[in-house]
Amino acid sequence: MNKNGMLVVISGFSGVGKGTAVKKLVEKYDYSLSVSATTRAPRPGEVDGVDYHFKTVEEFEQLIDYNGFIEWAQYVENYYGTPKKFVEDELSKGKNVILEIEVQGAMHIKEQYPDAVLIFITAPDAATLKERLFGRGTEDEKVIAKRLKRAYEETDDMSCYDYLVVNDDLDTCVDDIHSVICAENFKSSRNTDYMKNMKEELATIRSGM
Amino acid sequence: MNKNGMLVVISGFSGVGKGTAVKKLVEKYDYSLSVSATTRAPRPGEVDGVDYHFKTVEEFEQLIDYNGFIEWAQYVENYYGTPKKFVEDELSKGKNVILEIEVQGAMHIKEQYPDAVLIFITAPDAATLKERLFGRGTEDEKVIAKRLKRAYEETDDMSCYDYLVVNDDLDTCVDDIHSVICAENFKSSRNTDYMKNMKEELATIRSGM
Repeated sequence: MNKNGMLVVISGFSGVGKGTAVKKLVEKYDYSLSVSATTRAPRPGEVDGVDYHFKTVEEFEQLIDYNGFIEWAQYVENYYGTPKKFVEDELSKGKNVILEIEVQGAMHIKEQYPDAVLIFITAPDAATLKERLFGRGTEDEKVIAKRLKRAYEETDDMSCYDYLVVNDDLDTCVDDIHSVICAENFKSSRNTDYMKNMKEELATIRSGM
Repeated sequence: MNKNGMLVVISGFSGVGKGTAVKKLVEKYDYSLSVSATTRAPRPGEVDGVDYHFKTVEEFEQLIDYNGFIEWAQYVENYYGTPKKFVEDELSKGKNVILEIEVQGAMHIKEQYPDAVLIFITAPDAATLKERLFGRGTEDEKVIAKRLKRAYEETDDMSCYDYLVVNDDLDTCVDDIHSVICAENFKSSRNTDYMKNMKEELATIRSGM
């Protein structure tokens, strides 16, 4: 069956726990995780090459010039981008690559990789989503209101994703994402080589009878 | 998330063990199995309502006149059909309905139920498929040659199915089919109500802040 690697793009509402889900998904199953590059300064505890590839502005801009990113964007004063080489190397080895990215970036990736699978992680309902934003305990009401506004806008983007997976229980969420990736591998459209071989093999067997 | 029942159509190569896989799938997971109606005589051990709904020609033709079948066909001198009422009742209850049927019937169903999921059960390769046809020990070479011819023709139909699932190990095959059905339920296109509700709920929460 399908031997090609698959690019899996994961987005989700702010506060929905997508970072934790992606981390666990990659640990539990044999996926390659694409690490983004950025020019922003590392926060305490962040490790270069694990959390981000930390770059200077000059390095980043050179990579842009050399077409080194699948997609990149500038937020506030920092660059963020998805290095192309890692993704393409892993895909060519037949590995499934997980990429956690926000909505805009996901759309750019789908344009370039139409076979990419887009998964949006969501909460069981809006009340739960709001609770989780409050639950962090680190943000004031203004920040939460801003996040709710953003979440409200993101509901329109959900339909651009192929799948919606609810993060109610973390383990279930991780297994559900894995199920989606497995099922995608069974799609007939991803198994044209298998069908072609089956036809040729059957023709050979028949001619030998 | 998606509360609607889904119609799952399962076909596969002759001798690939689809009957056994479907039986196990329905036993292991909570699916409703659609039982076909036929005018052919019951074989020893076959139970009315379990293996088939056995009908007289008159009964069957009346059901055709009353639009009682999703699809029906005549093979040799016997009628075979999928009773509509059971399928629609189960779907409206939110149950997933499994329907084992040959290629032609599957295409008719897809026309009427574009949301139906079509799964084709296949063998790891053509050599294994041939072995299984021989392995039954009940058929002579002529019958096997005829089946191989049919299998060869069916390779062209595979691409009309949404998914190809290999039956190498029976338990894996059954779990893979279940994964496909679960993943289909996560499709954003099957969760438009959920997205609409999420948007409305977020709007309500925001207006209350």
